[in-house]
Amino acid sequence: MQTIVDPTDIARTYIDEVHREIQDYRLNINVLGLIASTDKPSLAYARATQRKFDSVGIHYDLRHVERLHLESAIEKANEDPEIHGIFIYFPVFHGQHDSYLANLVDYRKDIEAGSTYWTKKIYANERFAFDRDASRKALLPCTPLAIIKILTEVGKYADDVREPLRGKTVTIFNRSEPIGRPLAMMMSNDGAQVYSFDVNGPLLFRNAIPSETEIDRETALRQSDIVITGVPSRSFAKIQPEEIRQGAICVNFSSVNNFSDDVASCADIYIPRVGPMTVAMCMRNTVRLFQHFHGPNK
Amino acid sequence: MQTIVDPTDIARTYIDEVHREIQDYRLNINVLGLIASTDKPSLAYARATQRKFDSVGIHYDLRHVERLHLESAIEKANEDPEIHGIFIYFPVFHGQHDSYLANLVDYRKDIEAGSTYWTKKIYANERFAFDRDASRKALLPCTPLAIIKILTEVGKYADDVREPLRGKTVTIFNRSEPIGRPLAMMMSNDGAQVYSFDVNGPLLFRNAIPSETEIDRETALRQSDIVITGVPSRSFAKIQPEEIRQGAICVNFSSVNNFSDDVASCADIYIPRVGPMTVAMCMRNTVRLFQHFHGPNK
Repeated sequence: MQTIVDPTDIARTYIDEVHREIQDYRLNINVLGLIASTDKPSLAYARATQRKFDSVGIHYDLRHVERLHLESAIEKANEDPEIHGIFIYFPVFHGQHDSYLANLVDYRKDIEAGSTYWTKKIYANERFAFDRDASRKALLPCTPLAIIKILTEVGKYADDVREPLRGKTVTIFNRSEPIGRPLAMMMSNDGAQVYSFDVNGPLLFRNAIPSETEIDRETALRQSDIVITGVPSRSFAKIQPEEIRQGAICVNFSSVNNFSDDVASCADIYIPRVGPMTVAMCMRNTVRLFQHFHGPNK
Repeated sequence: MQTIVDPTDIARTYIDEVHREIQDYRLNINVLGLIASTDKPSLAYARATQRKFDSVGIHYDLRHVERLHLESAIEKANEDPEIHGIFIYFPVFHGQHDSYLANLVDYRKDIEAGSTYWTKKIYANERFAFDRDASRKALLPCTPLAIIKILTEVGKYADDVREPLRGKTVTIFNRSEPIGRPLAMMMSNDGAQVYSFDVNGPLLFRNAIPSETEIDRETALRQSDIVITGVPSRSFAKIQPEEIRQGAICVNFSSVNNFSDDVASCADIYIPRVGPMTVAMCMRNTVRLFQHFHGPNK
């Protein structure tokens, strides 16, 4: 028995919820999408996100800017009270400068919640968006949140609410600041032991605390109930069926599939992409941010 | 006529000035140096900076911490009112996470002034450290400041105070957020046209505004009055004498020398390292920060 799960159906539930909330409270939300790329697949992807936001009643202005004008466009959008959310299509410069730009977005408009303001809260275990105001919950970064929601839907988060992943082992290939690292923190906080790999080697996360480990890929994979990959490079050696344990759940969130095609037919549950759910979580964050910082109840 | 300039002598003037200021105002400043590395050259370097700070009367506590404890050590130091400055010995994780850690340092204690809080001010042309308080001048990142001060000392910044580099062409190999990029901004702000190279290609900076360019290394070097390198990689093709124009000034701030040995004997002025001056500028920033934010006149 093997299942390939496309997150589009799962996303629909969340998108409907966002739609209802926007209608019920008559929210008037404006998001600005900034894209520097001119290549066709990137533009097509950007237009697709635009349509999704529009479909729930969030006004989404998609604007093309030269990459060297991104910085001033972000600054301007930060200061514009009519813009409630900002989305930037990365990669742009492919390096440190992209992190600089992502962190330039005002946290009150960072609908991806991937900037340091938000990810730092996960490490510091701060639950609130601002000061100690318990009515405004902190945001979680879109892609990690999307992955956890998908795993919940497919029944891989247990019923024990306090530690839904107790006793589980997870391996994640990606330790980027906006995705892989917060995901490792969040899943280990939920009770799992998480092996986190990147080009600089592995780390082990337990209870949201990283520690050094010498474990290799083979050993980590053999132990893992859940394997998550996000390496946007063709030089990454794709994960082969014989590397994963029986009954494992495999999730790929990279634009390049990091699993060999055979994995699809041997994993217990295989989730080849996360994108549609990431967009849904991004919309959910948009509404949260609006209510926290821009709406009548802010 | 060819001169090799070691910045140690230039640094002495600035260090003496800092020393005098600390004595005159009886400043009681504590800096915490955090080092995760245990290799001997790194530790020797760290102890050398400690001695330099101590020699001017800044109490410098050098502490070794495991790399995975750096984050909490920074958080603790941020909150400790007895610590006025924090210095971290990078690289630690060799990636995005190092930027994350650097930006975690409270800007009021960031004596290197390499965090986004300070570098952003250069791009935004904000001259003040905080709000619009003209009595507290913004800090400049140590290494770019060190390079500009060295060039001033060797007479390569002209007397026209408004645009001391007017008519000059500069090439910089390095566009990192804390060094190469602010340096390009600052020198172009001083009137130069600056070609900035990194692995993702060249940019041209004029009046602190970057623009796209197709120029190649050879053409840029042939036009440049000043060539500055900071590529800490042995795979960088060292700059050869025949690539630089006659009378050029060559500055290397990388741990790996990016100029071929022959350049030393054919450049007009050759500055093989910047380190001692960077430390001097770091001390100067330490005093500035103390006076801005921690001292009796804050």
